[in-house]
Amino acid sequence: MYKAPVTDIAFTLKSVAGLDEAMANGRLGELTPDLLDAILEEAGRFAGETLAPLAPSGDREGARAADGRVTTPAGWPQAYADWSAGGWAALTGPEAHGGQGLPTALSAAAFEIWNGASMGFAIGPCLTVGAVEALEAHGSAELQALYLPRLISGEWMGTMNLTEPQAGSDLSALRTRAERRADGTYRIFGTKIYITYGEHDWTENIVHLVLARLPDAPAGVKGISLFLVPKFIPDADGALGARNDVWCHSIEHKMGIHGSPTCTMIYGDGKGETGEAGAVGWLVGEENRGLACMFTMMNNARLLVGMQGVGVAEAATQKAVAYAHERRQGRSTLLAAKPEPSDPMSPIVEHPDVARMLLTMKAMTGMARAITYACGFATDLSRERDDAAQARFWQERANLLTPVAKAFATDVGVEVASLGVQVHGGMGYVEETGAARLLRDARIAPIYEGTNGIQAIDLVTRKIGQSEGATVAAYLAELEAVAEGLRASNRPDTGEAAARLSKAIADLREATDHLLRRIAEKRTGEALAGATPYLRLFGLTAGTAYLAKGALADEAPARLALARFAAENLLPETAALKRIVLSGAASLAAAHALLVEESA
Amino acid sequence: MYKAPVTDIAFTLKSVAGLDEAMANGRLGELTPDLLDAILEEAGRFAGETLAPLAPSGDREGARAADGRVTTPAGWPQAYADWSAGGWAALTGPEAHGGQGLPTALSAAAFEIWNGASMGFAIGPCLTVGAVEALEAHGSAELQALYLPRLISGEWMGTMNLTEPQAGSDLSALRTRAERRADGTYRIFGTKIYITYGEHDWTENIVHLVLARLPDAPAGVKGISLFLVPKFIPDADGALGARNDVWCHSIEHKMGIHGSPTCTMIYGDGKGETGEAGAVGWLVGEENRGLACMFTMMNNARLLVGMQGVGVAEAATQKAVAYAHERRQGRSTLLAAKPEPSDPMSPIVEHPDVARMLLTMKAMTGMARAITYACGFATDLSRERDDAAQARFWQERANLLTPVAKAFATDVGVEVASLGVQVHGGMGYVEETGAARLLRDARIAPIYEGTNGIQAIDLVTRKIGQSEGATVAAYLAELEAVAEGLRASNRPDTGEAAARLSKAIADLREATDHLLRRIAEKRTGEALAGATPYLRLFGLTAGTAYLAKGALADEAPARLALARFAAENLLPETAALKRIVLSGAASLAAAHALLVEESA
Repeated sequence: MYKAPVTDIAFTLKSVAGLDEAMANGRLGELTPDLLDAILEEAGRFAGETLAPLAPSGDREGARAADGRVTTPAGWPQAYADWSAGGWAALTGPEAHGGQGLPTALSAAAFEIWNGASMGFAIGPCLTVGAVEALEAHGSAELQALYLPRLISGEWMGTMNLTEPQAGSDLSALRTRAERRADGTYRIFGTKIYITYGEHDWTENIVHLVLARLPDAPAGVKGISLFLVPKFIPDADGALGARNDVWCHSIEHKMGIHGSPTCTMIYGDGKGETGEAGAVGWLVGEENRGLACMFTMMNNARLLVGMQGVGVAEAATQKAVAYAHERRQGRSTLLAAKPEPSDPMSPIVEHPDVARMLLTMKAMTGMARAITYACGFATDLSRERDDAAQARFWQERANLLTPVAKAFATDVGVEVASLGVQVHGGMGYVEETGAARLLRDARIAPIYEGTNGIQAIDLVTRKIGQSEGATVAAYLAELEAVAEGLRASNRPDTGEAAARLSKAIADLREATDHLLRRIAEKRTGEALAGATPYLRLFGLTAGTAYLAKGALADEAPARLALARFAAENLLPETAALKRIVLSGAASLAAAHALLVEESA
Repeated sequence: MYKAPVTDIAFTLKSVAGLDEAMANGRLGELTPDLLDAILEEAGRFAGETLAPLAPSGDREGARAADGRVTTPAGWPQAYADWSAGGWAALTGPEAHGGQGLPTALSAAAFEIWNGASMGFAIGPCLTVGAVEALEAHGSAELQALYLPRLISGEWMGTMNLTEPQAGSDLSALRTRAERRADGTYRIFGTKIYITYGEHDWTENIVHLVLARLPDAPAGVKGISLFLVPKFIPDADGALGARNDVWCHSIEHKMGIHGSPTCTMIYGDGKGETGEAGAVGWLVGEENRGLACMFTMMNNARLLVGMQGVGVAEAATQKAVAYAHERRQGRSTLLAAKPEPSDPMSPIVEHPDVARMLLTMKAMTGMARAITYACGFATDLSRERDDAAQARFWQERANLLTPVAKAFATDVGVEVASLGVQVHGGMGYVEETGAARLLRDARIAPIYEGTNGIQAIDLVTRKIGQSEGATVAAYLAELEAVAEGLRASNRPDTGEAAARLSKAIADLREATDHLLRRIAEKRTGEALAGATPYLRLFGLTAGTAYLAKGALADEAPARLALARFAAENLLPETAALKRIVLSGAASLAAAHALLVEESA
């Protein structure tokens, strides 16, 4: 059963992501190290005691839909009620509306914990965070006053309605339409798919944020507006009125996260209680500026999906490590060079190949954790009010790390969960063990909230070019300082770690420079060909640097051993990735041309 | 829907694995190129028309167990009846007992096709092939006469009963016991788990091959015997008699291959019709030599599991390529350097990152196909009767390639199926699409029939040391000749392919020499630490060499483009893998020691 690694999470937040120094300097408001510890401790307790036990049954039962109603698994509505009663929904929301205004980095850590316990459960609250952010940044004072306190308390939940059958990665193809009404409201008509927790039995009301197009809107993404559409239309005091014309048509039969309903939502098919066709909606932000509103919350939404990868990876690692200590097979050469058949069987953790899998899992999980926390921390510092240069620096840092946090961490989630299945052998393939569930759950995260391919394209075409490359250059210099620190530490047992890390950073720098040149030369296609290997190169290098940074801050040998393992057993891949970025485009283009010609 | 790539399969068999030359020299019996084509064509037709349509419903329905009876999904028993009526069960069995005696390489190709259509279905016949081999090599004349014709016709099916709860990878821990009876038969008592198609509704009788221990047997693997235990005890004419005391206790709830029953089998709980406790069994081979009997068929069983990886990878690739030609999102830079928003949306196949995924899928599938066929072909040539040196050469080649065929191909199955999910975006996570099913099915193959970690250990500790390293050296020389041929071909558009391939072969040679030295120095633990990266290095290098060999044999540009893509975009990893083999052990050992100390 998942147990939140509270000590490691707190250490990574403080000593690796940098919260320690920021708290000392008062840059994170009221947050103190003790408060941070206490919050994580409590989150870990709730996750372990309440959420984790519901994950297996939730997977088996799944969400069910009938007649527009959705039932989540037994115990899930009560768990959500307990979760919001515990104040967890309010962790980051604005204090003016009842939120605790705590840092994004801490929220990321909390979401790691919820996801580690049950990703299918945690994804619901995750979407509400997005709705709060969008309303906080762009909603009118009236909308904020009515909706924010109830979303922040957890009394109501929010959803994000973007995707349509013909418009997934490409929102320019949206067809859902919005009509203006004289009273300033709008009526929404259309179909949205893949709406996470679009309908459920957790809260009395559900607040949908919906992208739609006005009749006179320009074509493409510049003609998209954002609307708020409540399931029940509240009066000014929040009392629920008429049932709005928005319905869950069906839910998907998915590979994993079975407890979470993924809904097809129909807007405006005339079945509401409002007396007319169309779902009643309110504009959020300006007309035709809906995509900009989305961008406001995109960084955090992507970070929170990254936390799904970290949480599942942690859960898979814990399960595999525990099993490997318990399961005995064969006789390992760890303790005796030539074991005798009469020796007792060894716990499989003693076999080098099993150790390789477990250490890979631990190292990759640690990398993803540190990258995501560092990304959240950058967001927090970007809120600096008194120093515009600092705010911009950290905003660009957050922009830079977001695609890596999302894509690398969710790839790690899948890889680590798959290794977890492998460590369990045949037991791993049997659903009751739970290892397979983690892999099935993890598999969605590289897809939604911008596929990992889209993240890589974003990193290459928009993020490394910030401030003419100065943003990424400063980041690489920070990573190199860690390698330098490791070299200078004179700690025994660092092996080749510092040298490997410096080599990886050099690979990343060379690849970065190459891509920046290609972009400047308008040879975008060539840059895009290397986008995915580049993001991987970035993640491995940054992740290992963070492991090394942690090792430098901790005298106990375990972190150093893991950082060294990562540097010497995982980081060699960076040379290959660099080569692919630098010289893979020509062969990809040649084969690509034939692939496109090929009739499907 | 899966369509067997008959042309590509035939090409790979003939021009890459080497069947063309062997057929011309009469080394493959009656097999001619035309017959080979006709068999593949017919297998492809059967797979596409009969098996593939049953795969999705079979996954949904799954196998069911009640009161010791097992029901497979609707249509599956009839499909099996049609399959065996088509003579497919008899493809490779000995001609003396009704088999067609066709080459193992051809059988591997046929199994690729069955697995591509439905892995859950194909795994049943796969086990019967193993039973036939064991009986053919070690069964008494009476057992052969009674059982072989019925197994080869497909009238009965076979199973392999090895695993027990405490004995998975380590068979020395077996507890199932066998007692001698005065009439020369035995009685078997014990529990076996993970018995694929241990009970089903396809055939009237099921022939279990069971590993068990005699009361006076030596401890460990030298005290294991092999027994034949029929579900119904036949008389000398094959007429079914008493129900034997062997029962399916339950079936597993698995991540995938839902249609195939994975049974817990109870031997000897007293419920049979034989009038006494214990399942009636007959010894196969000699007492206490059961593991040797298993080794006889292990190469082929592992190869056939490798074919599951190839088949699923091919099916996943076809599905993803088709979807990528059909699904439109965004505007690609392939045709216009700077597309306008008003341009029509591009099929996603035109996006470089999607192309990278699809080409990786095609290349990896092609690599795994060629390696597995080459492995089967080596087995065929090892049957050479007139030239002992040749027979030994090819037997050692088959021994060498078997762990690579099993582990690399099944890893490829998982990786390619996972990429297939990714190419489909959100659709990939929805079960109705079928991409997720392929990933769920594929995930078992790296686990059973010797985990891929065990394969890597086998490769490093037993296979590369054959004939003092001469076997692997000869193989590497063959690969290098391909690189040389590519260099000498003066074909345009080879890019860096020849250079990259030679570099990879040099990496593989250096890693091989290093491991051979470590083994010779009895530093086994260090060698084992690098086993998995070494196997991957071997598979990527051999696989790309085979793609290049195919390109040299085919004037059309597609094979060369794919080989070049593999060489320039996938093969760079070999340098990293070599480095890990050469210098990863120390950091793994350091971190491993801490991991073992850690309380679970």
